[in-house]
Formats: sequence, C-alpha cells, structure tokens
Amino acid sequence: MNAFEIDILGCGSATPTTLRNPSAQAINLNEKIFLVDCGEGAQLQMRKFSVKMSRLHSIFLSHLHGDHVLGLPGLISTLQLLGRTGDIDLYAHKEIEPWLRHTLNFFCKYLPFEVKIIPLASEGLQILYENKTIRISSFPLNHRVPSNGFLFEEKKGLRHIKKDMIDFYQIPIRDIQGIKEGYDFITNDGETIPNNLLTTPPTPSRSYAYCADTAFCPNIVPFIEGVDVLYHEATFSISDASRARETFHSTTKDAAEIARLSGAKKLIIGHFSSRYTNTLPLLKEAQNIFPNTQTAYDGLKINI
Amino acid sequence: MNAFEIDILGCGSATPTTLRNPSAQAINLNEKIFLVDCGEGAQLQMRKFSVKMSRLHSIFLSHLHGDHVLGLPGLISTLQLLGRTGDIDLYAHKEIEPWLRHTLNFFCKYLPFEVKIIPLASEGLQILYENKTIRISSFPLNHRVPSNGFLFEEKKGLRHIKKDMIDFYQIPIRDIQGIKEGYDFITNDGETIPNNLLTTPPTPSRSYAYCADTAFCPNIVPFIEGVDVLYHEATFSISDASRARETFHSTTKDAAEIARLSGAKKLIIGHFSSRYTNTLPLLKEAQNIFPNTQTAYDGLKINI
Repeated sequence: MNAFEIDILGCGSATPTTLRNPSAQAINLNEKIFLVDCGEGAQLQMRKFSVKMSRLHSIFLSHLHGDHVLGLPGLISTLQLLGRTGDIDLYAHKEIEPWLRHTLNFFCKYLPFEVKIIPLASEGLQILYENKTIRISSFPLNHRVPSNGFLFEEKKGLRHIKKDMIDFYQIPIRDIQGIKEGYDFITNDGETIPNNLLTTPPTPSRSYAYCADTAFCPNIVPFIEGVDVLYHEATFSISDASRARETFHSTTKDAAEIARLSGAKKLIIGHFSSRYTNTLPLLKEAQNIFPNTQTAYDGLKINI
Repeated sequence: MNAFEIDILGCGSATPTTLRNPSAQAINLNEKIFLVDCGEGAQLQMRKFSVKMSRLHSIFLSHLHGDHVLGLPGLISTLQLLGRTGDIDLYAHKEIEPWLRHTLNFFCKYLPFEVKIIPLASEGLQILYENKTIRISSFPLNHRVPSNGFLFEEKKGLRHIKKDMIDFYQIPIRDIQGIKEGYDFITNDGETIPNNLLTTPPTPSRSYAYCADTAFCPNIVPFIEGVDVLYHEATFSISDASRARETFHSTTKDAAEIARLSGAKKLIIGHFSSRYTNTLPLLKEAQNIFPNTQTAYDGLKINI
C-alpha cells in the first residue's frame, strides 16, 4: 500500500511553548511530501522528525497568521542551500504575495527556483492538485482572516483482477482495463460474466482533512464527509468557550461535533493554547462527544 | 556579583541541523537580557533554556543574513501576545528597515510598542548602549555583507573602602566618593594618606565579545583586547580553508589566532557548518593555537 503518513511538526498556537511548536504538518502521500502550514521552526522540526526535504512537493498555508507562516523564509532558504532547482507550488491566500516577494528578494537572492503562489478560493471546494492516484482540495473555514481547510484523498482505485478467472474465460488484454473499472464481460457466445466474479473490490481510498484555524463551522461538513482522519483545531477547553468565540477558534466540543457530524473515523485535536500544559482534560472533553479522538503532539506520526 | 551569563541559543550556520539551531545568544547582564542575533527558532530556544522574555532589553543583529534574523518576527509577535508595552531597541544595519516594517505591518498589526532601529556603523568602535555599570559597543567585521561584532563590558568599578581605616582617620562622608575613585586623603594636619591604605582594588570588570560572521579580521584586535570570553565563528575546519575564504567565513585557526592576538582569556568557537557532526576535531585545531578554547553547543551557559 502506498504511504499515507502525517507527521505533526508543530501543534501549538500563536504563543509557542517548550512543548509545542507553531503549526506545521508534513503529509507523505506516496513518497511526495506536502507541507501544511509552516510556522517558525518547521524546517528544524522536519529535520528532527526525519522528513525528507528532497521529497518536498508543495506547501499549503491555511491562513496568513505568523504562527502558520513564519517558517517559510527559512525553509526556502535552506532548500536553496541544499541545491533545489525545481519550482515549488505554494497554495496560500493571495495577500501573501507582496510580503513573500519582499522577503525572498531580501534573504534569498538568486533563488534558482520559483515559488509559485496559487491563490486559495474563499468559496466552495477548490481542487488544488491531482494526479492519477491522489487529489488535494481546499474549502473555506471561519476565522478572523480568510482561512482554508485542506482535504488529502486517494482517488478511488481500480478493482483487482482475479487472475485465474481471467485465464478461465480467456479474456483478451484489450478488455482488462474495462473490467478493472467495473464492467461485466460478454463472451463470444453472448454470455454475461458479472464483474464481481472477475474482480475483487479496489483497495479502499484513504483521506485526511486539516481544519485550522477556525471557529465552529458546520458548513465544512459536506466537504469532509466520511474522512478517515480529521485534524481539527481545539485551541480552547469548553470552559474557555467565550474566549474561543472572541478569537474565532474552536473548543474541544466544537472539534468533536464536526467529527461527529462529518462521520469522520478518527479525530486528532491540536493547536492548543499555551495556557494548557496538560492536554488530558481537553482529550476527555472531546471524547465525551467523539470517542475516537487523539491529542496531537509534536512528533506524532499518523499512519492512515 | 552581578549576573554576566551567556546562553547559547543556536550555534549552527546557514543550514540548521538537528544538533544546531541558527545563530542566537542571550546575554544576561545584571538581569537585563540582551539578545544577540535572532535566527529562526530563537524564541523557542529562549523558552527551552528558560531565558526570561520579560527581561528582554534590546536586540543586536550582527548582519542581515536569514540565519541571524528570521526569528525576529516570531519573537516580536510573541512579545506582543505576552503583553509587552515597552519599546524595544534593535541595533542592526539600516537596510533591515523596509523589510522589518513590511513584516511587522503584515504579521503584528497594532503592535503596542515600537521597534526602534539604531543603525550600526561601518567604521570604528561605536558605543551602542551604556548605563552606570555596563557598556555595549560594536565594531565592523569582514563578511560578504556588512557585519558587526559586539563587545559587552562592565565599566570599571569603584575601589572598595576599608571601613576600619576610614574610621581610624575619621574621614568625612563628603570625601568618601573621591577615595573610592582613587584619590588620596589629606588630613587636617596636612598629612597625605595614600589611597591604597584606605581601599582595596575594584571588582574586576568583565567583558564578552561576539564575532560572527566574519573572515579572518585582525583589525578587530584593538577593540577586543584582553576580553574575558571571546565567541568567534569557526564555520570551517582548517582543511576547508579555501571554502572559508570564498564565503568570508573563518576557520578554527582564524578564530584561535584572533583569540591569541587579542589576549582573550577564553575562546568559544561556534557557527559550525552543517557538514561537521563531530566538532571535536575542530576543537583540537583551535586548541593547538589557543589552548583555552571550548566548542559552543545549543544550551551552553557561560558564566563570566
């Protein structure tokens, strides 16, 4: 099975602590690394947790607050020093452009690759990247500044051929692709062989959603329905709900409700406020609503 | 005795490693914290090594390469979140101003304090800050871009009164200050009492010099003569001297020569290239020339 692994590089919020770096995650999809958010120290955490810089494919920024962005210049500078020449796609809100250009001109002169900014849309589902096997899309969240979530999913695979049955019916090669796609086979005698006699179901396609930063936002449910793993911010405890409302962040309850409403199989909560040194009470709050919840920590590796 | 402590927060070079963060040091002078260089992750290292953010007095940037600067926006943002209101002095080359203003306007809107830029001079010794007991000055180094070293020193203290002698000669209070400053005392009978009968020498004043990044630069010797502790970059081994010349960095030998020429009491070498995982050979090279050498590491605390 292809790799589908998430490395939590940082799951703190605006004020980093000794326990939690600012936001960043590396998503390994079939040995391509997609970096989601790039808080200060993201490149250092990539090294610490052995995420291969050479495999970095593209970067996705949920929103333009410093704790999700300020690791970007250092990372790009290091990619330059490591000899990267391939362009890098940066999916981010368009307002980043003047600052990023200014910064790269100042600190990364003569960059031998281009950082191409692909602006995130503020409405609906936007497909950002796809190839034969995976699709990455984005959808709006609800924060003080424009903020987007991301969905990483494998495309539905082809059905698996039962080789002995193919031999038995002497099915010609030109028909194999259709059978993998689910078509029945019709013999020279006009007999229909149903597809499920010839194939087994495709490997289940897996998915991961990243939702931070955001207030409680049930609008996103249709976009992440049935997701295997949902990372949702839970900056605050239920007891600090008023602070969550003021700052357009979520409580543990908000995160768990979104997991429940979307039928997620598993929830990871993170982006904890620096006020919480012990996250166990936060976990318990979320588990009351959505039992299959786990707390994020820097260095957590999730295998989907 | 007043505190005079250096916390090495990062002693790596442009490409950080798991062992070494980019450049930053916190200098505690009598419970005021002076931050020298501010590479990415400096604020995280301050937390890790328990350097009190609330005591941060001012910031000194040796030069405007990313590995010495890119931790600044995150640090300022955190100071804002922690409720700082006092202005902060930033001693740096003036070219930082447009980038810094752009960055702070973008990421730290409504900053409740001012970041005042005090430009570093490109010639001679420049006094940057002084109060009753300490003085901080700067002098030019020799790098690919303008780069400055910094000297932190205690001012020469007053001589200590021998209380029993003061009583014996019944010296009036109005004369005490002069005696502490080194004057002799003349009795009512016209007899001169030499100062060294009345006082003991002042507590020795201590000093620390930070020299990075720079090629071998003997011009700095007069500025750091007799320094107690000299931190000098030694990016390269002697065997990589040609690379040091190309990049305007120092070898271990260069650093040790500067320590020897300036009569430093102790040398700390740092800013090691990421190619060296074992720094013991670098230490040996420097010690061949200047025996009292120590290698820097992230988390090293030096008590002067």
